[in-house]
Amino acid sequence: MKRPYERPGRNELEDIEEFAKIDHGRHSRAGKPEAVFAEFKTPEEVVRIVKAQIERCGESLVTRASSEHIEAILKEFSDCDVKVNRKGRVVAIRRRLKEYSAESRPVGKVAILTAGTSDIPVAEEAAATAEFLGMEVLKFYDVGVAGIHRLIEPVKKIREAKVDAVIAIAGMEGALPSVVAGLVDRPVIAVPTSIGYGVNLNGLTTLFAMLQSCSSGVAVVNIDNGFGAAVFAYLIARTARL
Amino acid sequence: MKRPYERPGRNELEDIEEFAKIDHGRHSRAGKPEAVFAEFKTPEEVVRIVKAQIERCGESLVTRASSEHIEAILKEFSDCDVKVNRKGRVVAIRRRLKEYSAESRPVGKVAILTAGTSDIPVAEEAAATAEFLGMEVLKFYDVGVAGIHRLIEPVKKIREAKVDAVIAIAGMEGALPSVVAGLVDRPVIAVPTSIGYGVNLNGLTTLFAMLQSCSSGVAVVNIDNGFGAAVFAYLIARTARL
Amino acid sequence: MKRPYERPGRNELEDIEEFAKIDHGRHSRAGKPEAVFAEFKTPEEVVRIVKAQIERCGESLVTRASSEHIEAILKEFSDCDVKVNRKGRVVAIRRRLKEYSAESRPVGKVAILTAGTSDIPVAEEAAATAEFLGMEVLKFYDVGVAGIHRLIEPVKKIREAKVDAVIAIAGMEGALPSVVAGLVDRPVIAVPTSIGYGVNLNGLTTLFAMLQSCSSGVAVVNIDNGFGAAVFAYLIARTARL
Amino acid sequence: MKRPYERPGRNELEDIEEFAKIDHGRHSRAGKPEAVFAEFKTPEEVVRIVKAQIERCGESLVTRASSEHIEAILKEFSDCDVKVNRKGRVVAIRRRLKEYSAESRPVGKVAILTAGTSDIPVAEEAAATAEFLGMEVLKFYDVGVAGIHRLIEPVKKIREAKVDAVIAIAGMEGALPSVVAGLVDRPVIAVPTSIGYGVNLNGLTTLFAMLQSCSSGVAVVNIDNGFGAAVFAYLIARTARL
Amino acid sequence: MKRPYERPGRNELEDIEEFAKIDHGRHSRAGKPEAVFAEFKTPEEVVRIVKAQIERCGESLVTRASSEHIEAILKEFSDCDVKVNRKGRVVAIRRRLKEYSAESRPVGKVAILTAGTSDIPVAEEAAATAEFLGMEVLKFYDVGVAGIHRLIEPVKKIREAKVDAVIAIAGMEGALPSVVAGLVDRPVIAVPTSIGYGVNLNGLTTLFAMLQSCSSGVAVVNIDNGFGAAVFAYLIARTARL
Amino acid sequence: MKRPYERPGRNELEDIEEFAKIDHGRHSRAGKPEAVFAEFKTPEEVVRIVKAQIERCGESLVTRASSEHIEAILKEFSDCDVKVNRKGRVVAIRRRLKEYSAESRPVGKVAILTAGTSDIPVAEEAAATAEFLGMEVLKFYDVGVAGIHRLIEPVKKIREAKVDAVIAIAGMEGALPSVVAGLVDRPVIAVPTSIGYGVNLNGLTTLFAMLQSCSSGVAVVNIDNGFGAAVFAYLIARTARL
Amino acid sequence: MKRPYERPGRNELEDIEEFAKIDHGRHSRAGKPEAVFAEFKTPEEVVRIVKAQIERCGESLVTRASSEHIEAILKEFSDCDVKVNRKGRVVAIRRRLKEYSAESRPVGKVAILTAGTSDIPVAEEAAATAEFLGMEVLKFYDVGVAGIHRLIEPVKKIREAKVDAVIAIAGMEGALPSVVAGLVDRPVIAVPTSIGYGVNLNGLTTLFAMLQSCSSGVAVVNIDNGFGAAVFAYLIARTARL
Amino acid sequence: MKRPYERPGRNELEDIEEFAKIDHGRHSRAGKPEAVFAEFKTPEEVVRIVKAQIERCGESLVTRASSEHIEAILKEFSDCDVKVNRKGRVVAIRRRLKEYSAESRPVGKVAILTAGTSDIPVAEEAAATAEFLGMEVLKFYDVGVAGIHRLIEPVKKIREAKVDAVIAIAGMEGALPSVVAGLVDRPVIAVPTSIGYGVNLNGLTTLFAMLQSCSSGVAVVNIDNGFGAAVFAYLIARTARL
Repeated sequence: MKRPYERPGRNELEDIEEFAKIDHGRHSRAGKPEAVFAEFKTPEEVVRIVKAQIERCGESLVTRASSEHIEAILKEFSDCDVKVNRKGRVVAIRRRLKEYSAESRPVGKVAILTAGTSDIPVAEEAAATAEFLGMEVLKFYDVGVAGIHRLIEPVKKIREAKVDAVIAIAGMEGALPSVVAGLVDRPVIAVPTSIGYGVNLNGLTTLFAMLQSCSSGVAVVNIDNGFGAAVFAYLIARTARL
Repeated sequence: MKRPYERPGRNELEDIEEFAKIDHGRHSRAGKPEAVFAEFKTPEEVVRIVKAQIERCGESLVTRASSEHIEAILKEFSDCDVKVNRKGRVVAIRRRLKEYSAESRPVGKVAILTAGTSDIPVAEEAAATAEFLGMEVLKFYDVGVAGIHRLIEPVKKIREAKVDAVIAIAGMEGALPSVVAGLVDRPVIAVPTSIGYGVNLNGLTTLFAMLQSCSSGVAVVNIDNGFGAAVFAYLIARTARL
Repeated sequence: MKRPYERPGRNELEDIEEFAKIDHGRHSRAGKPEAVFAEFKTPEEVVRIVKAQIERCGESLVTRASSEHIEAILKEFSDCDVKVNRKGRVVAIRRRLKEYSAESRPVGKVAILTAGTSDIPVAEEAAATAEFLGMEVLKFYDVGVAGIHRLIEPVKKIREAKVDAVIAIAGMEGALPSVVAGLVDRPVIAVPTSIGYGVNLNGLTTLFAMLQSCSSGVAVVNIDNGFGAAVFAYLIARTARL
Repeated sequence: MKRPYERPGRNELEDIEEFAKIDHGRHSRAGKPEAVFAEFKTPEEVVRIVKAQIERCGESLVTRASSEHIEAILKEFSDCDVKVNRKGRVVAIRRRLKEYSAESRPVGKVAILTAGTSDIPVAEEAAATAEFLGMEVLKFYDVGVAGIHRLIEPVKKIREAKVDAVIAIAGMEGALPSVVAGLVDRPVIAVPTSIGYGVNLNGLTTLFAMLQSCSSGVAVVNIDNGFGAAVFAYLIARTARL
Repeated sequence: MKRPYERPGRNELEDIEEFAKIDHGRHSRAGKPEAVFAEFKTPEEVVRIVKAQIERCGESLVTRASSEHIEAILKEFSDCDVKVNRKGRVVAIRRRLKEYSAESRPVGKVAILTAGTSDIPVAEEAAATAEFLGMEVLKFYDVGVAGIHRLIEPVKKIREAKVDAVIAIAGMEGALPSVVAGLVDRPVIAVPTSIGYGVNLNGLTTLFAMLQSCSSGVAVVNIDNGFGAAVFAYLIARTARL
Repeated sequence: MKRPYERPGRNELEDIEEFAKIDHGRHSRAGKPEAVFAEFKTPEEVVRIVKAQIERCGESLVTRASSEHIEAILKEFSDCDVKVNRKGRVVAIRRRLKEYSAESRPVGKVAILTAGTSDIPVAEEAAATAEFLGMEVLKFYDVGVAGIHRLIEPVKKIREAKVDAVIAIAGMEGALPSVVAGLVDRPVIAVPTSIGYGVNLNGLTTLFAMLQSCSSGVAVVNIDNGFGAAVFAYLIARTARL
Repeated sequence: MKRPYERPGRNELEDIEEFAKIDHGRHSRAGKPEAVFAEFKTPEEVVRIVKAQIERCGESLVTRASSEHIEAILKEFSDCDVKVNRKGRVVAIRRRLKEYSAESRPVGKVAILTAGTSDIPVAEEAAATAEFLGMEVLKFYDVGVAGIHRLIEPVKKIREAKVDAVIAIAGMEGALPSVVAGLVDRPVIAVPTSIGYGVNLNGLTTLFAMLQSCSSGVAVVNIDNGFGAAVFAYLIARTARL
Repeated sequence: MKRPYERPGRNELEDIEEFAKIDHGRHSRAGKPEAVFAEFKTPEEVVRIVKAQIERCGESLVTRASSEHIEAILKEFSDCDVKVNRKGRVVAIRRRLKEYSAESRPVGKVAILTAGTSDIPVAEEAAATAEFLGMEVLKFYDVGVAGIHRLIEPVKKIREAKVDAVIAIAGMEGALPSVVAGLVDRPVIAVPTSIGYGVNLNGLTTLFAMLQSCSSGVAVVNIDNGFGAAVFAYLIARTARL
């Protein structure tokens, strides 16, 4: 880890022989991080990719990390700032460098709501990603529509906080985004979760229900994709500040 | 049309040569009407079945009637009371007889809600069926969850009216039954409609969303099955009065 | 566990920091219990929620409990009445208080039928729930349509007992509710189970078959949802007694 | 139409230039007729194929015939025995020849049941096919399971008649074959129909329900395939007589 | 095990308290065995049901038996003839009694073909069932259509043996029944297996392909249902001999 | 049309007897227009709803308008500014009032791309909606990935124009949003269209492909939902300007 | 039509204002024609695109042409060589120019087989496309597996002709490619058609069956995609000749 | 292992009693290897089949081999050349014989691309198969469309290398084959992988996306079927050299 940090060029690539071609320029070019999706990779592969990113860009974000992935990262990058969110299975790694300070990044605010308790891991994936990207996060968990009065306070706070975007996370019938989008005037990013049973079909029903929300102002990401929702919210906030 | 009306036995059947075996005893035996589902039948077939029912039981209910069916019935049964609900595609036919008075039947009250304007035909099928069965009907149309405050007044009225059951009809994401069941203490019969597009899948998504409602106290009937919902509500009310 | 039991207000909520927002008022408001669905929760989380419910309402119902959940509850609530139904995976917990007596609750009667032996766990979930809610339960197991004469006795008993509702539970082709609804004059709540193989599709085929029953008077709940069927039956009985 | 009729060899083929290769030997080789499925063919194409079959084998069977197909056949084959079943959309054409008499063919008996009135067209396709193949047909229509007592008489007659096979045709939840196979000791060939709506999925649900019948002794053919069911029944009867 | 063996009446039932209602009369009434599908039952439950059947009918057939089930049966019924087919997961149990001899039962012949090696377990389930029912079995394994010449010998032998029925078992594209039915003049019972990957969809694709065979004379049973195919073949042979 | 225009309150509703409950406050409350989805409504119903909106809010937007709807609107609202986009099937109606000027509304910029020519109707629905909401629209049509160099110019222009959001519309394999999101640093709203055949499944395949884009920064709306995409883009732009 | 024909550059594009961006360089760059898929386009749009292609490249191919499209093309391009294949719905248009002679193009040979008569339109789409691309076509229609001996002659001819590729087209159970690939040593391109009913699911079942062929050496294109199969065969032949 | 190697006849079969019928003539007859798909077979079964192939043909290829399979093969065939590709789960076994030299086989060149790192096992299955068949393999891994510039170098090299075919392997939205086919003039064999989550549906979405590629010149094999893609590429190259 010797090379000093400097901004990669738009199309800069790095080959890690035989298994990866890292797109270091993705953030410069397309405004979004090249995160490491750990699920189909060995701890060794994840560590190798993170190392390359740290060396070149000074930071790296790992999602869907198992405890094996997390231990391997903690061991390898003991000289870095490593922030672990076990519920969300996210690890954020950063070099301890002066020039890399939070103040220099775009700032924004996002509200994250879940319908139930079981949706929280997805929410935490979103929260950890948003925080890695420099956003302020407001959390409102277990506020689903079976007791509609649970939404009164969150909606009031969201209106006051002037958030850039709302992330509404739900399993089951997935009604939360529809109701929220009928109450607030911000873009609502809906995340279906695979929580449910029977006709839930691993989240497919929730996804479909969200896609045909009777409210407009809702867009949807893949099932359980808390990371994608946070990146999208970040792009909204970033665009507003450019 | 000569035979006087008298109650059929539990297992009484009538063969209409080559195409139908009418179950005259269904109401005595199982508390529900043998309605004529007109959709896959010719006007002639419908008329023949209705005639047999009128002669034996004094009344008949036809659902999914096209205008051809309706005209054929009106022409044939000009000496009966014929009540046509064109939006709901339902026709109720009754002999003009003293002994067949509304007072002698079980009574009950049902509230029918729709999420949108396009769900109204299904609601009217339910309403016409419930009225045929002697129920009082309260209608609240276009009160879907995109503007949740539209539900305040209906919920208040439902609580006051002490209905036997609530029929909640919706297309799209089908969130109405969940929200209503979270607010009232009566059985909620959910009817998915085939209103929607794209991922609606002809109502399948709505059906699935309703089946995995995060509220309990909801049971579901087939897509667009207003008739079935009304019969179910009637059985609830009838049971309460036996 | 110090606070004396008193009825919560309609909209009373309790925040359990960071993962749950308990809707204590659900029963007052919407006539149904806020049961704890244990499947996606740790034993610790379940215990925390149950404790909050016991303290505030004096009772709690846990469904889909694993043996880990059950042991944790038994250990924690040794000073309460804890009723465990291992086949149905349901635990009912109640404080030992004078003011909380079964006599003060609404009463009703429900018949529970299963088509086969393998459907019994779902039936027991329903039975345990109905009993928790104060209902009398009649059980008729393994009476499916492959030997139609097995239904003769149950139907006779159901007619005599004047039940409020019938819960018909089946896997495979799911024909039981159709046949039963053709024979009895009570609302039939159909519960598809995930028992079967090949084209069973984890219960989806059974569900669909039930939804398009050729008998009216049938409404359906989610696959394996014995709890939901029992709550629905309870609402029918409760409505009849209000 | 000059060539005298004689039995074709097992593998005899005839090319009708550019669109068909007729398998005249199918009946000798595989015991089943090469019927003409008219649905995707023009009346001209159907007539050409029928002509080739009549010339070589003395008989031809056309299924899924529209009225255009029927008129074209009646016009072209005015010198043959043409038997039209309009409800079943089947046409049987035979040369008027001494040597082609019904007595020389295998004989058998099949019972055909339908659950409802709307399933009759499929039943008539089966009946016309079975009769073309020399079978005796017993019909029991509209005997579905919503009124289970409707089955008492048919089952009694089937037992007495000692049929070779039973064809049970149903739409909706498709429970008829299960119940029938639980009552009779003959092979039950189940035919799902596309009659239904909502979750019927054009007969797919009915098909799946039949395939996972809780009764054994049931085998299934494609949706609406009355022809295939009849050929299968014929092969059973033929095998019993060889 | 004291009661002597005698034929049960048509509608004779036996209640095994709380979990099973055995239909002893099934064979008398409907010509098919009440086999014990072991998959969703504990070894104890299976043993209890088998014991009741042995006591009353002298024989019992268990399918989908795990090695736990098999060991429990072998231990419990050491005084009976127990025949285990481990590949097919079938166990046949019979009392050692004079009056129960193979000669007194209907006889028949069935050919069983598989497309591949991996389909053999399903074939063995069919073979063991057919043998339990007194049939002679001809086996032709691994003769799928990728090398069409592999079918020459089996087809020749099937023609010579004058079988009552052919069971054609295949996974993947399921083409075997189509090709076989084009070559032999007996009923072909097709069994799709769940062998395959990707678009196989656990056998659904194979099932669908078989159902729309371009050959007639094919009927289909559920995925992996070797038992059902054998019972169906037995009913064909039995009917031919009555 | 007499009442002067003034801003409706957040929760203001208007009942149009028997079929609609107009949510006039939606824009004040939730920042999005209550557009009229014409597809399931008669021209008379559409005109009645538009009239109510014009009277109360001074403007109305109708989507999925058939030519019958369009003619009815043009006839009825000849005293208004009526802007018809026939390709997109959108009609925008506004009263000719001083106080309602474009300058007073939030402003923003959106780029709309289509993969093919056949996707243009959906793009025009989006464009007409965005323009109604006061946005500037950049169009790049027929720039799909089969000729990847077609994207060079659009990407360059999008970067220069500093748009608030990109709407990427595609049918078939739906790869456009992935590629675009890999090249630009703005939120990409993906709209799947039902253009395709065979495995397209009416757009479902395209939708699923977009949802699992290998690029982050993409969120998806329902199939063919150009309107929804435009409202979402508007909310992003509006949020950036509040 | 004045500009003389000359080879376009690899990345040459032409904008047809507002609806199309023609990729003239596709053949130079990627070896395949930019055909015009007429189905979702008006006759006017098709004519405009064809005109641009003729002017720039001297030739154009239109697929999925309705009779309206065909008439418009014939009328507009009366000075060109226009070859219409009505069964395949394909039109090939070429300028009458010396420099554009068939001899100068790559040559190859393809065999096209269909399982049934109803698959012929797809076969003709493939044949017309292959001929447009300069290939020799051998046709074998109606040689499906229900009469396996129908394949003897085609296989013999394919072996003798030394074709570059085989296109095997089938609906129903789609077994033809498996059997053919087991008999010939050339690449087999399988085309599923939407011919069938019931479980055919518009060709999906056929597609899936082909994809899991037990023979290797088979690759598949979209349902009914005769054009794609021909282009693929052409690329094989072209590659062999480069 | 005594018999000397000589070319088997076209239709030569070998029976391995009770479970396999080896098609030794497949390569002579149909130009493709009979590989051993190990997944559903025991190590013993695999070894027996390999032994038969080695004895008769001198070589054998095993795919989907677990480590148990691999160990069993290594142990048994220690006197052969055994080449193990663990990532691709492929084992190639060859007798050490003079007459079996690589020079005598058809030669060709194939490029293999993957979209991501997780697709590499499928790519290695393809690579190992192609190499077994005597082809030269060019690998380009992790070049998916999220960073489209990653494709510049591979495309350049593919053009220069004059490959016979391109194998494009991708999971997720599966856009790689479309983009590649728009850039190179060789047949593109697309392989969908089951890499993804949520709406990926185990690769079904990727498969469908590839099948409706907007580029022509793409044909598809089953999900994860690297073996099939390589055999297909080999047949293309082999055809070009015959």
